[in-house]
Amino acid sequence: MDNKEKALEMHRKWNGKLETVSKTPVKTREDLAIAYTPGVAEPCKVIAEDPSAAYTYTMKANTVAVVSDGSAVLGLGNIGPYAAMPVMEGKCVLFKEFGDVNAVPICLDTQDTEEIITAVKNIAPAFGGINLEDISAPRCFKIETRLNEMLDIPVFHDDQHGTAIVVLAGIINGLRVTGKKKEDCKVVVNGAGSAGVAITKLLLTYGFKDVTMCDRLGIIGPDYPDLNWMQKEMTKVTNLSHAAGTLADALKGADIFVGVSAPNIVSPEMVSSMNSDAILFAMANPVPEIMPDVARAAGARVVGTGRSDFPNQVNNVVAFPGIFRGALEGHAKQITEEMKLAAAEAIAGLVSDEELCDEFIMPEAFDPRVAEVVSQAVKSHIRA
Amino acid sequence: MDNKEKALEMHRKWNGKLETVSKTPVKTREDLAIAYTPGVAEPCKVIAEDPSAAYTYTMKANTVAVVSDGSAVLGLGNIGPYAAMPVMEGKCVLFKEFGDVNAVPICLDTQDTEEIITAVKNIAPAFGGINLEDISAPRCFKIETRLNEMLDIPVFHDDQHGTAIVVLAGIINGLRVTGKKKEDCKVVVNGAGSAGVAITKLLLTYGFKDVTMCDRLGIIGPDYPDLNWMQKEMTKVTNLSHAAGTLADALKGADIFVGVSAPNIVSPEMVSSMNSDAILFAMANPVPEIMPDVARAAGARVVGTGRSDFPNQVNNVVAFPGIFRGALEGHAKQITEEMKLAAAEAIAGLVSDEELCDEFIMPEAFDPRVAEVVSQAVKSHIRA
Repeated sequence: MDNKEKALEMHRKWNGKLETVSKTPVKTREDLAIAYTPGVAEPCKVIAEDPSAAYTYTMKANTVAVVSDGSAVLGLGNIGPYAAMPVMEGKCVLFKEFGDVNAVPICLDTQDTEEIITAVKNIAPAFGGINLEDISAPRCFKIETRLNEMLDIPVFHDDQHGTAIVVLAGIINGLRVTGKKKEDCKVVVNGAGSAGVAITKLLLTYGFKDVTMCDRLGIIGPDYPDLNWMQKEMTKVTNLSHAAGTLADALKGADIFVGVSAPNIVSPEMVSSMNSDAILFAMANPVPEIMPDVARAAGARVVGTGRSDFPNQVNNVVAFPGIFRGALEGHAKQITEEMKLAAAEAIAGLVSDEELCDEFIMPEAFDPRVAEVVSQAVKSHIRA
Repeated sequence: MDNKEKALEMHRKWNGKLETVSKTPVKTREDLAIAYTPGVAEPCKVIAEDPSAAYTYTMKANTVAVVSDGSAVLGLGNIGPYAAMPVMEGKCVLFKEFGDVNAVPICLDTQDTEEIITAVKNIAPAFGGINLEDISAPRCFKIETRLNEMLDIPVFHDDQHGTAIVVLAGIINGLRVTGKKKEDCKVVVNGAGSAGVAITKLLLTYGFKDVTMCDRLGIIGPDYPDLNWMQKEMTKVTNLSHAAGTLADALKGADIFVGVSAPNIVSPEMVSSMNSDAILFAMANPVPEIMPDVARAAGARVVGTGRSDFPNQVNNVVAFPGIFRGALEGHAKQITEEMKLAAAEAIAGLVSDEELCDEFIMPEAFDPRVAEVVSQAVKSHIRA
């Protein structure tokens, strides 16, 4: 039986993957009188007096909602909220297994931006954070920004920021291993959707000066046709020399390539045209922009992908569980840029100088230290 | 330490009562490849082809949302969504413990009827049923009716129907023990909120002919001031003789009293004015409309309350877990009147002829047979 059949069988066997469980026994009348009426009225009264007590007496303390409208699920596209459920349940399972964070999948039966915003605002009281997932660009940007303005709990679009944090962690260690300096690097990000935009923003925040975005038609600049409003915003801070041309043109002399785009679109020649000690993150899944062995044969030094069967896997699971763990413990109201940078540095820092090499720049997904250091990094940057 | 302090301590200790848990291990890369990417794409694709496969491959199969706006919580009133959370988490715990049904608390940050309807419609894809809870009347009637029209999963306001089903079960056994016939009984329901209305409707559906509702100002009829739209509807099917007067007037010659109202409002004299072998359900909590010993001393034969420390406890927990268990197993689209009647009869039927007596008309809350027989009763009435 291959993994596809195994996945179907497992999902059938359990009817999904997630269950809800009581933390407290309910086996006697007295149990019932404490967990439910009449005893339950006491925490209700305390919270009615002081809503912040919800963090003490309810699951808000350690629970997030994983919210999707099913509009951009994995590589499957707009498959809708029902078909998105296995992914969202899976995400909830990862939250618990990797971060000890309870998580509830909420798949919304609307793809209207305003209805999504209203729905998330309305379900927020039970939760200490909102993880947006697989919502298509550019709607995802507005939804996240508006919700962060409205709510006093963090709203975090993992396809954007989780990916950006993990890529930055990889790049930080790519710089360590190659000795390159961020101020001097020429960076090319291919793919101008939610992940590409967020990666570019976070690299600029971290201190990279020269970042160029590309999409299907090549280098993005003011004259690129059909840019959405967010891509237009990005032209103000990227490609400052207003270059035009193809991805191949952009890669000439580049130090770092980040692909969140499509299979096999980077050729060995393009890699050879890059600067020495080139760093590539080819994260199209399951087939990357260029296969790692091909890229290295063409002269790349550090190559990461989204796959677990190659070295240097870039996997969001090293970021989001710890980020929310820390945010929940500190009652954070937002995930700030400082927290994202600190999380990336914490992830990168788990690879010791002794371990660090071209083929080991990322901690393992199952490294039990990951969630803890990320959580502490986030928590230490919460402002009162 | 009294139960109030114990309840506070337990809720503090666990930060609420509910957690989410994975049904499948995620300890290895292969686990991850089956529960999450890339394996998870397979059930997604199956559901994208056939949305009904959500009942096979996702938690929709066995999960309900417990939805409240916090507008009518226990006896505490409109305490809002944050303070309502301990009750909703408790309800979710009972769903699991008594019915093996997973349940997620959703406390809505709106009390606008249309926004509540839209929010519930939008979160529905993950769930196989919606349990509405502690939403004030008459808004609850419209919200439930509209959602049942819109959704293809059952929407069930437990304060209405759960209560009505359990009261009917008690009355069925009250008739058994007293030998009264439903067609001949004069019934008085005191309290014209969500529970009183639903009890009255279900008693009429069951076959009672003479039901009179009362509220604070006495007998409800066409001339009662300030009736809401639902109470006006009820005047068409209750109090057909257009009687007017006080609760005391209504109770003269009555066979059955159901109170979902206020403490100590039924006097011994009122009970004495009832028909012989009177049946009383005095369910105001924690202090009933009349204490059982007082009622029995005044001539009542069967007395039930909402309390576990008196005989004949009327407790919704014998209804809602099994009702949703059966509805989920049968992929029910609604909880119909037939299902409610069947559930009440199944609950009543658990008390054998040998056990049945004035002080034992209800099965125990912890009777392990309850959820099973209720589930089977509901399931057998699902229409294709």
